[in-house]
Amino acid sequence: MKSKRKTVKKMEFNDFMNNKGEWLKGTGSHSNIVMSSRIRLARNLMLKPFPNKARKKELTDILTEIHGAMDSIELFKGSTFLKIGELDNIEKQFLIERHLMSHDHAVNTEGKALVFSKEEGLAVMINEEDHLRIQVMQSGLNLNDTWEVANSIDDELSSKLDFAYSSKWGYLTACPTNTGTAMRGSVMLHLPALVMTKQVNKVLAAVSKLNFASRGFYGEGTQASGNFYQISNQVSLGHSEQEIIQNINGLIRQVIDQEEQARQALLVQNRPMLEDKIFRSFGVLKNAHIISSQETVEMLSMVRLGIDLEIIKDLDRGIINELFIMIQPAHLQKIEGKKLLVADRDIKRAKLIREKLGGEK
Amino acid sequence: MKSKRKTVKKMEFNDFMNNKGEWLKGTGSHSNIVMSSRIRLARNLMLKPFPNKARKKELTDILTEIHGAMDSIELFKGSTFLKIGELDNIEKQFLIERHLMSHDHAVNTEGKALVFSKEEGLAVMINEEDHLRIQVMQSGLNLNDTWEVANSIDDELSSKLDFAYSSKWGYLTACPTNTGTAMRGSVMLHLPALVMTKQVNKVLAAVSKLNFASRGFYGEGTQASGNFYQISNQVSLGHSEQEIIQNINGLIRQVIDQEEQARQALLVQNRPMLEDKIFRSFGVLKNAHIISSQETVEMLSMVRLGIDLEIIKDLDRGIINELFIMIQPAHLQKIEGKKLLVADRDIKRAKLIREKLGGEK
Repeated sequence: MKSKRKTVKKMEFNDFMNNKGEWLKGTGSHSNIVMSSRIRLARNLMLKPFPNKARKKELTDILTEIHGAMDSIELFKGSTFLKIGELDNIEKQFLIERHLMSHDHAVNTEGKALVFSKEEGLAVMINEEDHLRIQVMQSGLNLNDTWEVANSIDDELSSKLDFAYSSKWGYLTACPTNTGTAMRGSVMLHLPALVMTKQVNKVLAAVSKLNFASRGFYGEGTQASGNFYQISNQVSLGHSEQEIIQNINGLIRQVIDQEEQARQALLVQNRPMLEDKIFRSFGVLKNAHIISSQETVEMLSMVRLGIDLEIIKDLDRGIINELFIMIQPAHLQKIEGKKLLVADRDIKRAKLIREKLGGEK
Repeated sequence: MKSKRKTVKKMEFNDFMNNKGEWLKGTGSHSNIVMSSRIRLARNLMLKPFPNKARKKELTDILTEIHGAMDSIELFKGSTFLKIGELDNIEKQFLIERHLMSHDHAVNTEGKALVFSKEEGLAVMINEEDHLRIQVMQSGLNLNDTWEVANSIDDELSSKLDFAYSSKWGYLTACPTNTGTAMRGSVMLHLPALVMTKQVNKVLAAVSKLNFASRGFYGEGTQASGNFYQISNQVSLGHSEQEIIQNINGLIRQVIDQEEQARQALLVQNRPMLEDKIFRSFGVLKNAHIISSQETVEMLSMVRLGIDLEIIKDLDRGIINELFIMIQPAHLQKIEGKKLLVADRDIKRAKLIREKLGGEK
C-alpha cells in the first residue's frame, strides 16, 4: 500500500513542476503592480475541539468528516488530497513554497491534510489552527471575484458540515483575533519604485496605522524580499466581508497610485540609472553560474519592473513570477530529484534561471 | 593654413577610430597571457643639448633635423607626423591612451613631435626626455622580432644622424639610468589567475628583486588595472641588447608558467566559481547602461580570461583588447566628436561596449 501511494504522490509532484499557479500568471487588474489577491476563511466544526485541544482520535474523525463532505462537492473534483504526515520534509517545504500551506501546517502533522485544486487557486488546510482554512488566490487585484469563489465554497461546505457560529461573535475560531467574519483578505504588491525612492516605510507606516498588516512575499513573519509586500486586514470582527474588502481595495488603490507616481518620477528624472539597474539585473540572471536566492529575488524584482515599464520587451511577466517560486530550495530539490546542499542549490538555481530566460548555456 | 592642417588631422583621427594597433590583435606567441611586447630605444644627437637644457631655437632645429632624416627612410613612409603643440588636450590624451606617447610628451610642447606608422607598431617621440624615443610594439611574446625591427630603424636613422655615443658609456641619455644600450624591453602580461589566487604580489616581489620593474596597463606610474602588469628591465648598462632580451624572456616565461598553473588550479578546484565570475562579467558588459572605466576594465579582464580558457567561445580576443583602449575618456570623446562630462562618458562607454559585444540594444 505504502509504495503505491508514494508512486501516485511522486507523479503528482512531478506534475506540479510543469504547472504554475493561476495566481502567478501576471494577468488581471493592475497586474503591473499587484501580483495576486487572496481570501482566506477560517471555519470550525460545531461541538468539536479546536485542533490544538483535540486528541488524536478526534483529529482523525474531524479529517474524515471534512474529507467526506468535500468528496461530494463538485468544486473539489480533480483536487489533490495529501495527508501531511505522509510527506517528507522536502515535499512539505515544496507546498509551503508554493503558498499552498503554512509553516505551522508542516509540524505536529497528526490529522492534518491539504486539499488543492489543479490550478492551485483553491487550497484548504485541514486541522491547521482551525479545522478548515480555505484559501482562494487569483492573479491581479481581484478581491471581489476571489471573495465570490471563497463564499461559494463556504456555502457548499456549510450545506454538508455544521460550522461553529455565534450570532453575537460570528464564526468561532481557535484564535480570538479571527472571530467575526473569520476572513482575511490580502493583496501582494510589488513596490520597487517606492523602495528605490525610499518612500516605502512611510507608506507601510500609514498602512499599519489604518489597522492593516504588511508582510513579505514568503508569508507571515518573513521579511519583505524582492520588493514584495503583502497587505491584509488585521480586524475581521465588526464589519461585513464586503465592507472589509472595500476597505482593503481603497487602501490598495492608494498604494498603487503612489507606486505608479514613484515609477513615473524615476523614469522622468533618472531613466539611464533605471535602465542600467534593470538590464544589469537581467544580465546577471542570464549569465550567473552561482546565485543565492536572496540575490535572485532582487534581480527578478528589477526585471519584473523592466517588463512593467516596457524597458524589457518580449518577455512574459508570468515567467518572472514563476521563477520567484521555482528558485526556492525545495523546488530546486524536487526538480533535481534529490537533496542538495546550499552550494549545489546555488549552481542549480543559476542553471534553471538561465534556461528559463534563454541565457548563457 | 591653420584650418587646412586641422582638416587633415581630423581625418587622421577619424581613421584611428576604425583601426586598431597591431599589438592589440591578440595573436602571436603566448597571446593567452601576453598582450604585447615592446622595445624602446633612447637616442640623442651628438653635440646638441638634451631637450630639458635646449632653448626654443635649438629644439626646433633638432626637430627639423630628425624629421628631415626620417623623410628619406623607407620604413617611415606612410607614417603620421604630428607636432604636439598643434594638438588640443583631447587629441593629446587620445595618443597617450593608444600607448603612442607618454604623459610627459604632452606638456611643454615646444619642438615636440610624434611620428607613428599606420598599424601603430612603430612610434617615435621627438624631444621628449631624449631627442628620440623609438618604440616598437607587437602582439604576443615577441621581443626578439620586436628588437630586430627597432634595431633596423636605429641603423637607418644612424646612417643619417650622428648619435651621441661613448665607447665607455654607450648611448648617452638625458637620464643616466638609460645610458648603455639605452634600451628598455617590456612585456604586458595579463595575470588574472595570479591575482585571484593572491599570488601576484609574491611574483612581483621576485621580479623586483631581479631588477625588473612592473607597472600598470596605462604606463609608468599607473596602478595595475584589469590584472595587466608590464614587466621591463631596470638596467640597460653592462649588458648587450641580446643579453637583456634573453634575461627578460627567461623571467617572463617563469611568470607565464605560474599564471598557467594558477589558471589550471582554478579550473580544477573551482570551475563553477570561475564560470560564474566570467559570465557575470560578460553579462554586465552586454547589459550595463552606465559603467565606469574601472569597472569596465575589471569585467573585460574576466571576459579575456574566459576566452583564453575557452569558457567563452566565438568571441575574438582582439575585440576585448581593443575595448581596453576604446573605453578611455579621450577615445569616447573623439568617437562622440565632443567634450563629455564623466557621467555622460559612463553612458557612452556602456553603449559602445554593448554595440561591440552584440549586447542589449
